[in-house]
Amino acid sequence: MRRMKRRVDADRSVDGSDGNGEIRSDLRDLGFGARVTEQSRLRLLNRDGSFNVRRTGLSFVERIDLYHSLLTMPWWRFHLVVFSAYVVLNLLAAAGFMLLGEGALGGIQETTFTGRFTETFFFSVQTFTTVGYGHVFPDGPAANTLVVLHAFIGLMGFALATGILFARFSRPTAKISFSQSAIIAPYRDVIAFEFRIANQRRSQLIDVEARVLLVRNETVDGKTTRRFHNLALERDRVAFFPLTWTVVHPIDEASPLFGLTEHEMRTCDAEFTVLLTATDDIFAQMVHARTSYRGEEILWGAKFADPFVPSDDGILRVDLRRLHDTVEAEMPAN
Amino acid sequence: MRRMKRRVDADRSVDGSDGNGEIRSDLRDLGFGARVTEQSRLRLLNRDGSFNVRRTGLSFVERIDLYHSLLTMPWWRFHLVVFSAYVVLNLLAAAGFMLLGEGALGGIQETTFTGRFTETFFFSVQTFTTVGYGHVFPDGPAANTLVVLHAFIGLMGFALATGILFARFSRPTAKISFSQSAIIAPYRDVIAFEFRIANQRRSQLIDVEARVLLVRNETVDGKTTRRFHNLALERDRVAFFPLTWTVVHPIDEASPLFGLTEHEMRTCDAEFTVLLTATDDIFAQMVHARTSYRGEEILWGAKFADPFVPSDDGILRVDLRRLHDTVEAEMPAN
Amino acid sequence: MRRMKRRVDADRSVDGSDGNGEIRSDLRDLGFGARVTEQSRLRLLNRDGSFNVRRTGLSFVERIDLYHSLLTMPWWRFHLVVFSAYVVLNLLAAAGFMLLGEGALGGIQETTFTGRFTETFFFSVQTFTTVGYGHVFPDGPAANTLVVLHAFIGLMGFALATGILFARFSRPTAKISFSQSAIIAPYRDVIAFEFRIANQRRSQLIDVEARVLLVRNETVDGKTTRRFHNLALERDRVAFFPLTWTVVHPIDEASPLFGLTEHEMRTCDAEFTVLLTATDDIFAQMVHARTSYRGEEILWGAKFADPFVPSDDGILRVDLRRLHDTVEAEMPAN
Amino acid sequence: MRRMKRRVDADRSVDGSDGNGEIRSDLRDLGFGARVTEQSRLRLLNRDGSFNVRRTGLSFVERIDLYHSLLTMPWWRFHLVVFSAYVVLNLLAAAGFMLLGEGALGGIQETTFTGRFTETFFFSVQTFTTVGYGHVFPDGPAANTLVVLHAFIGLMGFALATGILFARFSRPTAKISFSQSAIIAPYRDVIAFEFRIANQRRSQLIDVEARVLLVRNETVDGKTTRRFHNLALERDRVAFFPLTWTVVHPIDEASPLFGLTEHEMRTCDAEFTVLLTATDDIFAQMVHARTSYRGEEILWGAKFADPFVPSDDGILRVDLRRLHDTVEAEMPAN
Repeated sequence: MRRMKRRVDADRSVDGSDGNGEIRSDLRDLGFGARVTEQSRLRLLNRDGSFNVRRTGLSFVERIDLYHSLLTMPWWRFHLVVFSAYVVLNLLAAAGFMLLGEGALGGIQETTFTGRFTETFFFSVQTFTTVGYGHVFPDGPAANTLVVLHAFIGLMGFALATGILFARFSRPTAKISFSQSAIIAPYRDVIAFEFRIANQRRSQLIDVEARVLLVRNETVDGKTTRRFHNLALERDRVAFFPLTWTVVHPIDEASPLFGLTEHEMRTCDAEFTVLLTATDDIFAQMVHARTSYRGEEILWGAKFADPFVPSDDGILRVDLRRLHDTVEAEMPAN
Repeated sequence: MRRMKRRVDADRSVDGSDGNGEIRSDLRDLGFGARVTEQSRLRLLNRDGSFNVRRTGLSFVERIDLYHSLLTMPWWRFHLVVFSAYVVLNLLAAAGFMLLGEGALGGIQETTFTGRFTETFFFSVQTFTTVGYGHVFPDGPAANTLVVLHAFIGLMGFALATGILFARFSRPTAKISFSQSAIIAPYRDVIAFEFRIANQRRSQLIDVEARVLLVRNETVDGKTTRRFHNLALERDRVAFFPLTWTVVHPIDEASPLFGLTEHEMRTCDAEFTVLLTATDDIFAQMVHARTSYRGEEILWGAKFADPFVPSDDGILRVDLRRLHDTVEAEMPAN
Repeated sequence: MRRMKRRVDADRSVDGSDGNGEIRSDLRDLGFGARVTEQSRLRLLNRDGSFNVRRTGLSFVERIDLYHSLLTMPWWRFHLVVFSAYVVLNLLAAAGFMLLGEGALGGIQETTFTGRFTETFFFSVQTFTTVGYGHVFPDGPAANTLVVLHAFIGLMGFALATGILFARFSRPTAKISFSQSAIIAPYRDVIAFEFRIANQRRSQLIDVEARVLLVRNETVDGKTTRRFHNLALERDRVAFFPLTWTVVHPIDEASPLFGLTEHEMRTCDAEFTVLLTATDDIFAQMVHARTSYRGEEILWGAKFADPFVPSDDGILRVDLRRLHDTVEAEMPAN
Repeated sequence: MRRMKRRVDADRSVDGSDGNGEIRSDLRDLGFGARVTEQSRLRLLNRDGSFNVRRTGLSFVERIDLYHSLLTMPWWRFHLVVFSAYVVLNLLAAAGFMLLGEGALGGIQETTFTGRFTETFFFSVQTFTTVGYGHVFPDGPAANTLVVLHAFIGLMGFALATGILFARFSRPTAKISFSQSAIIAPYRDVIAFEFRIANQRRSQLIDVEARVLLVRNETVDGKTTRRFHNLALERDRVAFFPLTWTVVHPIDEASPLFGLTEHEMRTCDAEFTVLLTATDDIFAQMVHARTSYRGEEILWGAKFADPFVPSDDGILRVDLRRLHDTVEAEMPAN
């Protein structure tokens, strides 16, 4: 099927477009733009899956993306933000209670300004958290009205904070290891571009799908442009993924890599970007992972070593440390 | 593949039906109805993605859609609704405690009706929010039973309110900018209908899919009717969307726009409706965006300007303010 | 495409199997079973979308499906269950405090057993809800330890109750109206099976997909069996669904309804089951709706009336009360 | 369609690869590895759907997967973990209050160290749970500051604990029964591999999809390797699943099981792994189930017994206890 499609592609015009959105040699409509040509030494996608790009030109207000920021900032920063908000809101409330005068709170024992402010702040916290010991308490309508507001803000505020806390904690993410290097390995009668992945999580991934896009410089009519190819995989989807999976792009006549030498690969600023999507067993939700390999991160004439561990207890064991292990392999004469 | 499909379409009957649900010239089964013909000057979809339609005839009860309303009303209104409910429920509870007579609450200091009601209201709030200072407290079975109910309602009520608050805050939405104008640009040997999009959010979108539907007046057998065409895109799906994406509909022989002049486009009340769906990186959930372009919002003989910003730090930069920028382009003689 | 597929189907063996899971005439593998033949007067799917089936043979424990039950029981019952659990848990705790003897709680004023139990129960509630006024309080390690447990159970219990409350409230559901009757209408040169739907919610549905399955009695080799056909739709998916949608199955040569008379339709115990799936605009989640039409609920020689309301304010208006309206239509001579 | 695809497969090279990711005879790229051959007596997937594999080689830190663990551990363990954390955090806080000296808390009545520590611990709990009776209360800035921290930790901690509690309770899961045995049954002119499933939940499943993968030993060129085949199903997807579903793989010329005898099946260490995915009616979310059948768990010459229960009340009844029931069936002479 894919083979058929590729044959169709081969029939297409020189510029490599196939019109079905799968393989495009011209980056214009992908938003990579002409500039990329001059900047082709730049990596588009980093090894850790983050993009090596910035979107500028947004106003400060447009840039604000509060929920996304709160979800993705480091834990120490999240805790700092939430705790600071907690302290600041209670300082504000304490100032409010102070403005109402000395009799606003019953049970205050200190008489200095600092002492009263401190006690008032602690009372605010007891209200905000709904602890409400009651040894200090609001006296009179003004203070009580402020309590009505402050307790409301406390309950709503903690709901937001704890909602985000839990969303951070429970956010469905994949922890997929990619082999340190991609390889060019012997494959049946030809060779293939391969990399290997493993799931580091305890949960299982089902319906795992891999997509590999090649970006590289190409010279057509004497003009070098940056082009983009979707690489056909021998297998682009697996139902189960209990151990490791070697993703394979066979370099046959239909491949844009066909006939390319190791030297050519290194000098065309090739980047292989990888997108994995899957469904997590436990979350029952879609997760994904990204990475990329540069031409110089590819080993020629290698194959992946066996990652299995002998065992006598009837359980298959795979050692994830061996994920990256390769052994030399004899390449077809070709 | 798509090209093949279009060739099949071309083989179809004059009315443009292809029977596979992709391209339909007759709006009847889309619910746009005969009336639309007379109202063809009306926009179906507004620029901001909202539909220019109303569904009437529902009874008041059927129209109520509490959760949807609470999710989508403006923030100020949501806060007003929730705070009002908070005040009203506590006023009701205060009235209940008042009905139980003077001895129902211990610790009340005021003796006037207003004073007692005020203190009782504050006590209700302290119970509802579970602050419970205790300087006022229920005395006797009747008041205590009311407390049992009121604290329960408070906890359940706040759970609803804070749940909706967080659902509003965390609702997965896309913030996609569409280019101000769509353009008719030179494209290979022909011309193409194009528009450009960018993701304004910090999060990445993956698996972005675009669908473009054209609605316009057509005259068949002397009768003008409003017809609808699905426009085949050169690329209708991208795995990554880190920068901008120019969505392209090539106007070749298979396109319903083939041979159309600028004047004809403006006078047939054409509307290009756009639906984008994608998966948000952070939410791991589907998001979408809609917009539409009217015939008069299309620039002929233009192409989109390069949005890239030169940079020396190894990071690709795109300036989102330039998303809308176009430059003049020489059209093929045709 | 679909047309092509149907042609392939026509090439298949008499029993109508196509081997690709799309059209099957034999119900065995759908779990409808031989018995269904004798019970063919029974409706499989009710008008409201519920199935007319029961699964028996599960033990009491296997049958328990607590979360599903709590999500789907009527609101009055849910509130009753939660409130009862609240009262019972506090009665149990009150009994526990009573067992610790008279001095376990400070601040108790009553001396009779009933009075003390009542006060103790109220204290339990104040602990369970974390109101904690403090006019009654635990005295000594035993009572305090019980408080440690009871407050913990209260917080966890309310989290479950309020979680389910919110899950009920926010559960993504569709509110789709189906036309009272399905119709057999003139359609191009032939006739078609049609029904009409509208979205009653304020939110928009996108990517709406319809699937229609026909179940009916068929006599092959003198044996009547109950068979099942997937009906090919002229359009089985719409990107937008702002107004109404008329779902159309053209009764051409490829249709299992081809050549059927009205009388035959009524006497073969036909049932048209309908499944709609869509994505809700607001929830950003998949929703669905089901219904079925029996042979006798089908109007022959009708078409749906125009549901549009004239308007002068530039907004398309559709009157949902007219969803069910049909007008007589002249059928092709055939 | 599937039949067409299989014919294409038949045209492929001896090693059975079809290049489209659907049928692969070589396990290397599925991560089952060479070792599997020697360990082919090992079951890959257990009857209950868990994988019979271990991933080793992760460091202690990499192995930690807190949220997954907390979601999937047994209930008794989850409660133990949460309750222990609750006690330990309050013991720590109590220790903190003790360090501040005797006057830090007002209302403490005991004078012995143990007595004071106990009272302080109970006070900590009252703060942590926000009960806050107030008969014991913080006195002075140091104790109050500790309260500010402890109440904050309590609110955040309980939010995490109750969030996970609810996530556990509401996690979308399927409860699908698989027939005890798979069978080889007569099927039209040939035979078929079949098993039967039923939904044990009260909720309905829609869009149920089945995938069956065969893993077995094969001898090619005198070398025995472990190979893997995707089995084409007569029907791999059903829109509704109200009763039971018999999943059928016809053993025709295109099947890798074609011509296999019962003895051969038992001696090639065959394992049929099954993946079911569906959408739950109530959750509106994807759920799935897995199982596997070994060659020796397959009954030859049987068919599934009718699971229906006679009923007079117009409701179809299926007895789930009969799901596993088979009756002898005459196999075609072949």
